[in-house]
Amino acid sequence: MSYCLAIKVNDGIVFASDSRSNAGVDYITTYSKMFRFTWPGERVLTLLCAGSLATTQAVVNMINKDLEENTGPINLKNASHIYEAAHYVGTLSQKEQMQHREAFLASGVSGEASFILGGQIAGKNPELYMIYPQGNYISASPQTPFLQIGENKYGKPILDRLISLETTLEDASRCALISIDSTIRSNISVGLPLELAIYISDSIKEPKYIKLYENSVFYKEIQKKWGEGLKRAFRYLPRFEWEKPNSYD
Amino acid sequence: MSYCLAIKVNDGIVFASDSRSNAGVDYITTYSKMFRFTWPGERVLTLLCAGSLATTQAVVNMINKDLEENTGPINLKNASHIYEAAHYVGTLSQKEQMQHREAFLASGVSGEASFILGGQIAGKNPELYMIYPQGNYISASPQTPFLQIGENKYGKPILDRLISLETTLEDASRCALISIDSTIRSNISVGLPLELAIYISDSIKEPKYIKLYENSVFYKEIQKKWGEGLKRAFRYLPRFEWEKPNSYD
Repeated sequence: MSYCLAIKVNDGIVFASDSRSNAGVDYITTYSKMFRFTWPGERVLTLLCAGSLATTQAVVNMINKDLEENTGPINLKNASHIYEAAHYVGTLSQKEQMQHREAFLASGVSGEASFILGGQIAGKNPELYMIYPQGNYISASPQTPFLQIGENKYGKPILDRLISLETTLEDASRCALISIDSTIRSNISVGLPLELAIYISDSIKEPKYIKLYENSVFYKEIQKKWGEGLKRAFRYLPRFEWEKPNSYD
Repeated sequence: MSYCLAIKVNDGIVFASDSRSNAGVDYITTYSKMFRFTWPGERVLTLLCAGSLATTQAVVNMINKDLEENTGPINLKNASHIYEAAHYVGTLSQKEQMQHREAFLASGVSGEASFILGGQIAGKNPELYMIYPQGNYISASPQTPFLQIGENKYGKPILDRLISLETTLEDASRCALISIDSTIRSNISVGLPLELAIYISDSIKEPKYIKLYENSVFYKEIQKKWGEGLKRAFRYLPRFEWEKPNSYD
């Protein structure tokens, strides 16, 4: 598996991803799931991937090849809207999966992959999409300002509680980090390092990029403070009627 | 779906369950998933159910019939160990599923169900088991003092962080409530009322039983305080290097 998410707030878009890839439990490796495509002043796109590593690598290779050759009908640089780019990524994903379809069916292995694609084209609004394994896609909305792919359930409650359109980019980034950290604690198919890309609305320039390893002081501090804060919140919960009153009250 | 969990700490066992049952999204109903069997001074057992409502109801009916008739080789009252009772519940579940197997396969509907069974037989240690849809079962352990069935991922991170063998029964109960509350917020297939049964080790008597509805003052207070505590914990997280220092520090 793996776990990636993106949060689209009024100030911009935060992208976050883990780096674990596993085929079964005895072949665990580290791969980046985040790919950034920036043409400063023109367009800025970030792609996150989850699912079959072979499929996601093939899709990224095809994206880069189409950009290099610039001969096909569409690529990430010339798509007129980000939803067209999302459609294009979905088409590449389906193309790759169909190529191995019989072998997947015969072996019972899944070649499915999901993607998140977001960013901004100069003169247009920022956009954020999730692309399903079937190639179709949905956008983030004011009511659901975040999208997740991969192992998404463990880290969803904290997003449901804390994220709104008014959340700052930094708070959204912190929330993404604790969402991934909770997932790492509960599921071995998600692991460090974490990557974070913070895109500021209308900047049309490279997102701020941060990579956090296990020994990162900032990440350790986030983990520590969050753990302490949760324990404190827990201590302050109301007592049952048969208990002594909470001495913290 | 639905979500049930049980936590076995040194002081006893906490059982918690939601009450939502759904067949698709247009037939949502309320059913208790908790069944208590108490013979004071002899044995105390609590059963939690998730999965196909038809299967779990059939299993509970067979359990009650075997207790009434007392003719079969085993029932909940005469099993010499709780793992034998877990094996018995698994056998009933498989029997029920096999009876409709062809129809399930033909319609693509799942008749699978999972169970948690725990409690204590006088003179023996408290025990806690999870019974898989296939009828096999596992016990809780000192390293994994909780077991979950149904929609278990949303509510797992908080258990991973807070539960240990030394946790008090009341803290384990509060943790179970916030684990279910987080799940309710993130997944519409889990819903109120919640049921809580708190069994005190070596008491061999009826567990303390609490049912919490939407308008329950205690439950509302738990939700409110937990929400506030999480927001406070979040506010105190470290700032990125480019941000102003945290004014709360």
